[in-house]
Amino acid sequence: MIVETLKWVGGIDGHLEIIDQRKLPGEYKIARCTSVKQLYDAIKTLAVRGAPAIGVAGAYGAVLSLQGVSANASMKQTLAVLKRDCEYLAGSRPTAVNLRWAIDRVVKCAENSTAATLYELRKVVLKEANDICREDVEMCRKIGVNGARFIKNGAGILTHCNAGALATAGQGTALSVLYEAKKRGKKFRVFVNETRPLLQGARLTAWELKRAKIDTTVICDNMAAALMRAGKIDMVITGADRIAGNGDAANKTGTYGLSVLAKAHGIPFYIAAPSSTFDLKTKTGQDIPIEQRSADEVRLWHGLPARGNTASPQDALRRMAVLQIVPDGVNIYNPAFDVTPAENITAIITERGVIEKPNAHKIAKHLA
Amino acid sequence: MIVETLKWVGGIDGHLEIIDQRKLPGEYKIARCTSVKQLYDAIKTLAVRGAPAIGVAGAYGAVLSLQGVSANASMKQTLAVLKRDCEYLAGSRPTAVNLRWAIDRVVKCAENSTAATLYELRKVVLKEANDICREDVEMCRKIGVNGARFIKNGAGILTHCNAGALATAGQGTALSVLYEAKKRGKKFRVFVNETRPLLQGARLTAWELKRAKIDTTVICDNMAAALMRAGKIDMVITGADRIAGNGDAANKTGTYGLSVLAKAHGIPFYIAAPSSTFDLKTKTGQDIPIEQRSADEVRLWHGLPARGNTASPQDALRRMAVLQIVPDGVNIYNPAFDVTPAENITAIITERGVIEKPNAHKIAKHLA
Repeated sequence: MIVETLKWVGGIDGHLEIIDQRKLPGEYKIARCTSVKQLYDAIKTLAVRGAPAIGVAGAYGAVLSLQGVSANASMKQTLAVLKRDCEYLAGSRPTAVNLRWAIDRVVKCAENSTAATLYELRKVVLKEANDICREDVEMCRKIGVNGARFIKNGAGILTHCNAGALATAGQGTALSVLYEAKKRGKKFRVFVNETRPLLQGARLTAWELKRAKIDTTVICDNMAAALMRAGKIDMVITGADRIAGNGDAANKTGTYGLSVLAKAHGIPFYIAAPSSTFDLKTKTGQDIPIEQRSADEVRLWHGLPARGNTASPQDALRRMAVLQIVPDGVNIYNPAFDVTPAENITAIITERGVIEKPNAHKIAKHLA
Repeated sequence: MIVETLKWVGGIDGHLEIIDQRKLPGEYKIARCTSVKQLYDAIKTLAVRGAPAIGVAGAYGAVLSLQGVSANASMKQTLAVLKRDCEYLAGSRPTAVNLRWAIDRVVKCAENSTAATLYELRKVVLKEANDICREDVEMCRKIGVNGARFIKNGAGILTHCNAGALATAGQGTALSVLYEAKKRGKKFRVFVNETRPLLQGARLTAWELKRAKIDTTVICDNMAAALMRAGKIDMVITGADRIAGNGDAANKTGTYGLSVLAKAHGIPFYIAAPSSTFDLKTKTGQDIPIEQRSADEVRLWHGLPARGNTASPQDALRRMAVLQIVPDGVNIYNPAFDVTPAENITAIITERGVIEKPNAHKIAKHLA
């Protein structure tokens, strides 16, 4: 295992432990989520992030929800609380479809359950969440296995944001492809877009690739084009947060531009994502809701001082520096995602296989 | 005047005042340069930046140099001091062609002068520096006048880095075009790429456009493509640091990618720069040396805490926060510039006029 991004600790009275990704790479800290509210905040503030990971986290949210139900509540009341809490959790991140998918699955499981008591229901829901987590680990591995053949020996590979172990319960999606290629003895070099505004590439992808001993170079997002022109990039691979029925894919802001640049330079562009990322109710990318996030993510830089630069290390709050980048009174546009049209995608790699030149027909067949 | 980036205060015994751009947008502070050493440090540390601006600053450095000459020095000794100090200043930013050009001009002026006394020589050199400054102001204005017609009423305009008043003694190059369009009553909206790694777009361009009451929105560099696809961008305009004889233009890293994206979306791409930016000795963009800068510019974020976030405002050094973005042990690639090929450039706007679809023949004619 590359890294344990999230882990349920204990039985039905247990809690969820997550790596607090807001603090990486400065600090490696495990955060505990013991209530639905804590989990909501953890997802909303990106302490846990990545479409598959927040799906798994959301499923465990159902377990936390039932911990709060009174022992003498009726089954109807219990299910009402569960559904209310799950709706609340689903609202934490609107674009990624995996969270909604996982939540719907545990709620449906609870509704269809023959559990006669709250105690039994809690065991059923925990089992379902554990299943979702286990399936995610297996899904990651299979994506890697299915994609490894696309990694050419000696290749330069560009990735954006973090579609790695930190974004899943397993070894990631796009980065799983790299991990499986490495396992097969392939040598390659990875360029990582730092991925403004929240720098998941610089902070998270670089961190986990370095742990996996993969040759890694971080660049600013705006440097990718010149690297492509210089012939240093042989393929681009990213994850996705939601893929429409026609193959248009929403992913971290900046992915669309990369796909255009790749096309202009004749470089193949791959997406690696679980089949649960497809949302057939969404016909095309135009129908995917794009989450607009706070201007302060661009305006301010919140972070931990570099080591050795701290006057009072004992005071965590005082150590948190807030730097202003953009002057007051200037507008800021901060969409979390953009949409890459299917025609820019060379292939989509899922745990089921590979869809080359994706379109509605091939996708429907792939998912059937 | 948009902003007084640099100003000579007083006569031959005066000094140079500059806006300390390292502190923007957090603090608006005027720094005084009263010696050659102080000016050297100001240029070296980017307190004053932008090729035209550091050219003007360098010229005033000659005036500061002569202030240090003893009244009973011979003319020969005086000129030796002047040349030594000017060589020293030229070394502060060895790649900036305007600095070398301005320094050579004041030294030549001093050498050719018929001044019989140090007092007279100091007046001659101050006049030459003032001329260089005035010509820069006029160059900026003319670029704006020549380019204003390209700004359509109601347009969305994207710019990168800072090619504004803060980069010149006047009203800038690319931004001068916007200022002149505004003067003519045109209404438009400007999107500014924050411009990683040093954020000149977010920190400097946004700051001066806001002072000029122009509708300004800062985006992360990776968001430009989606804005283009959404039809929000009608033109792109940037400055340039060096333009080869065939029209290939070196500018801040990220400019090349923007030109590819603009082309893919059918959006015109303009460069605004003084004719002194052309370097006919450089045949094509491939011959332009690309400066690689320190990895720490990407790895670390150096900055001033946002207002109200400072434990000890009296201690400027302790207030400077250093945040680590990229984990230790990961490679970083940090080219300062990239090259936009002439075929991606709709037109180059100079103080002499406009070169549409630039090529070697048109450029030679333009400069003749």
